[in-house]
Amino acid sequence: MTTKTDPQISRRALLGTAAATAGAAALPAAAQAGRTPQPTRADVIVVGAGLAGLSAARQIVATGRSAIVLEARDRVGGRTLNHSLGHGKVVEVGGQWVGPTQDEVARLARELGIRTFKTYDRGNYLFYENGKLTPYSGSGPLGPIPPDPTAVAQLAQILGELDTMAKTVPLAAPWKAPNAYDWDSQTFETFKRSRGLGRGASNLIDLATEAVFACEPRDISLLHVLFYIHSAGNRRSPGNFERLISTGGGAQDSRFVGGSQLISIRAARALGRRVMLSQPVRRIVQDRRGVTVYTDRLAVKGEAVIVTGPPALTGLIRYEPELPALRAQLLQRFPQGSAIKIEAVYPRPFWRAHGLAGQVTSDTGPIKITFDNSPPDGTPGVLLGFAEGHDARVLGSLPAAERRRRALECFVRYFGRQAARPAGYIEMNWSAEPWTRGCYVGYTPPGVLTDFGTAIRAPFGRIHWAGAETSEIWNGYMDGAVRSGQRAAREALG
Amino acid sequence: MTTKTDPQISRRALLGTAAATAGAAALPAAAQAGRTPQPTRADVIVVGAGLAGLSAARQIVATGRSAIVLEARDRVGGRTLNHSLGHGKVVEVGGQWVGPTQDEVARLARELGIRTFKTYDRGNYLFYENGKLTPYSGSGPLGPIPPDPTAVAQLAQILGELDTMAKTVPLAAPWKAPNAYDWDSQTFETFKRSRGLGRGASNLIDLATEAVFACEPRDISLLHVLFYIHSAGNRRSPGNFERLISTGGGAQDSRFVGGSQLISIRAARALGRRVMLSQPVRRIVQDRRGVTVYTDRLAVKGEAVIVTGPPALTGLIRYEPELPALRAQLLQRFPQGSAIKIEAVYPRPFWRAHGLAGQVTSDTGPIKITFDNSPPDGTPGVLLGFAEGHDARVLGSLPAAERRRRALECFVRYFGRQAARPAGYIEMNWSAEPWTRGCYVGYTPPGVLTDFGTAIRAPFGRIHWAGAETSEIWNGYMDGAVRSGQRAAREALG
Repeated sequence: MTTKTDPQISRRALLGTAAATAGAAALPAAAQAGRTPQPTRADVIVVGAGLAGLSAARQIVATGRSAIVLEARDRVGGRTLNHSLGHGKVVEVGGQWVGPTQDEVARLARELGIRTFKTYDRGNYLFYENGKLTPYSGSGPLGPIPPDPTAVAQLAQILGELDTMAKTVPLAAPWKAPNAYDWDSQTFETFKRSRGLGRGASNLIDLATEAVFACEPRDISLLHVLFYIHSAGNRRSPGNFERLISTGGGAQDSRFVGGSQLISIRAARALGRRVMLSQPVRRIVQDRRGVTVYTDRLAVKGEAVIVTGPPALTGLIRYEPELPALRAQLLQRFPQGSAIKIEAVYPRPFWRAHGLAGQVTSDTGPIKITFDNSPPDGTPGVLLGFAEGHDARVLGSLPAAERRRRALECFVRYFGRQAARPAGYIEMNWSAEPWTRGCYVGYTPPGVLTDFGTAIRAPFGRIHWAGAETSEIWNGYMDGAVRSGQRAAREALG
Repeated sequence: MTTKTDPQISRRALLGTAAATAGAAALPAAAQAGRTPQPTRADVIVVGAGLAGLSAARQIVATGRSAIVLEARDRVGGRTLNHSLGHGKVVEVGGQWVGPTQDEVARLARELGIRTFKTYDRGNYLFYENGKLTPYSGSGPLGPIPPDPTAVAQLAQILGELDTMAKTVPLAAPWKAPNAYDWDSQTFETFKRSRGLGRGASNLIDLATEAVFACEPRDISLLHVLFYIHSAGNRRSPGNFERLISTGGGAQDSRFVGGSQLISIRAARALGRRVMLSQPVRRIVQDRRGVTVYTDRLAVKGEAVIVTGPPALTGLIRYEPELPALRAQLLQRFPQGSAIKIEAVYPRPFWRAHGLAGQVTSDTGPIKITFDNSPPDGTPGVLLGFAEGHDARVLGSLPAAERRRRALECFVRYFGRQAARPAGYIEMNWSAEPWTRGCYVGYTPPGVLTDFGTAIRAPFGRIHWAGAETSEIWNGYMDGAVRSGQRAAREALG
């Protein structure tokens, strides 16, 4: 089950433009803006056609009420985006993985007839430290944690401690944790240093933070990290740190056949002309009678509105009446992570023949983490690397040729000269995307959850807030986005 | 030298509306938007008619080039705002003080014929701790620091240490300090706790942080605090912590006759129809030929543009081409402080007769700091109190009557029953002001200066950045705003 190939779109995709989606071509003409007269009234107006917005609209329509989804981009999917590899195959340049306890995105995919397959994970992982490359088994007792002899015991200790602390953080109100103020008064870096880790364990904590949040341990509140750990599971199986960083059995367990964006593409297709593309919302005006949502070309009226997307982006809309001060200030304090997703395409996944899983953990950037991201049948071979946090901020400021040179240098360092000349090179800097402005997720620095946390989900009159950052369960993930849309729909339907 | 009284304006001022300025009435009609045909071309376009924007425009015009200033509000002055007390007297509801080494705002005021007078500072200060009120002299060796016997020695130690550390932070590039990453990896709270202070000294550090930044020690990077300390002085006399918190000889030394907003009012009057009010800038488009700045009604063309204001607000404008990723992400990470300025007006400053200066330092909010803010001749008596950081966030979420009740309860606690029934009550929550969204100043949480600091002032094509948060000297103060405008004008004029 793959999307159609379009060489034109494929070329634009290589340039990393917002239009770069094989999926948009699959949308019915009626869903494209400006072709036919559009409805301009609905019970609930949804801002954003990512997983949160489309899930909200599905739920509203399922109860027999009407919905209109206004999307700024000329495509659906938000932080998920397929890239055509030709021959009917795709690879994702945005969010892509799904794993156990991510029940709601899994159910949505099933409803839409989308299957999953296991992330390629056979053979040895590679650990690069102090200029030395060491193969190791990723299925050991500490999962993906490399076999640094000094580090493993220290990591087991600190991860266990974090998991125990995380359980005391209420998912619906992290600011009510018994130690909330203490934990929100320090960065994750400060906590890490207080545990007297050796350099190896400390590096691996840095790497895990970068891999999960696309930021550095100094950027983020300890309380937020603990909330996020707890959030990485469902009611029956609360989250733990290892699940966040693991492939088999973890958040990187499986992938969607046809690419994760296909979920949004099919959900949008089912909603038909209710989904309007290229309609960035500029203004939301509410009064006692209802709410009017203005794009550059439309004024859409409704009873309620659901605003999705990264919290910082929701602050770019003009609200009348003005947002409450607490929410307006929250939006100055909820930054998005910094991630560049880089994929090199080779005729075959040559590393498999060398007994390698394609997964690297490295102390040297800009790419410190890699995966085998080849399509289900293993052709072509796709090496996926992430530049995250500090590395992404530095790399993103360099010219394109230099970015490519530095990225491929990493692939060669880990997989040898065969990696030097890929047939294709795909790069997506989510910090530069105007309708996202940073991946994977918004996080909070110290002091924010305790003083501003209540404003994350509190409805403002007829306005309800959704998006992965508002979810109690799998906050920041595709599953959290789906759940947030469902919750906001329930709220909006009152 | 005071502005005109207008009972209508005065009433609106009591409601805390943006239009609440005695000063706007004094602007020539030509400076009001929409009255006469407006120029729509200038060498340099300035966004914002606060001290930064007006200083930039003055400098541009002084070199014989043309300037247009576009202001979102229906008044000039930005974070300075006069409030009429009637009888030709005013009191400020925004930034107001000036002190030694703040040379540029002092020079600007002199050029505009505006005099200063000393902040009322005679008699005893009051220290409220553990339910007990203690008078003390504010002119002792530690300035305004209350005479808590255990705390004084500890404070002398930690403030000395901070001053020494601050000197190593380069004002033009704090991220180049020898210990930049270490200091930017922790909150000021973490640093404070590492010094093993007793409860008294710890409370006073909290209070000083709230008084200077309107945030909590947990909100702010140690590196930013050190930069700010160093910044509180000129080249000949670099800053120190005591200067930030002192009245006589410090940042609260003096006030402007006629109110601080009079500086902007007179500067705008001199610029005449170059200043256009009620013109919120929505879009800035630049190409090889020039730049076009769009408001709801105008398209103004120029060679360069200077954008002033709190960094977070500059992110609400749409830029074509898009902002570089590093600046776009910086703007998600540069929050404004949280401050509510509350003033109670009495027939006379009755506390003076009791030998009190009107200055309080308290461990109990919402108002923990007060000043005598009466006009130069001492009539009427004005008690000024600040709710800052956490207190402002909580107080700002309460209904108006409850806010007033809690504020007056503080005044009564410190000054007795005579404070219970003021003739006037004035309140300004700067977090709720859509064109400011928080005072006194933008600050950076951990991790921001080191990874994003270079984007604070870096021009983007034809766009130059000004505002108090961009100044190397007296960052965050009126003086810093003036200096930032002068620097941006030099840049824009090339």
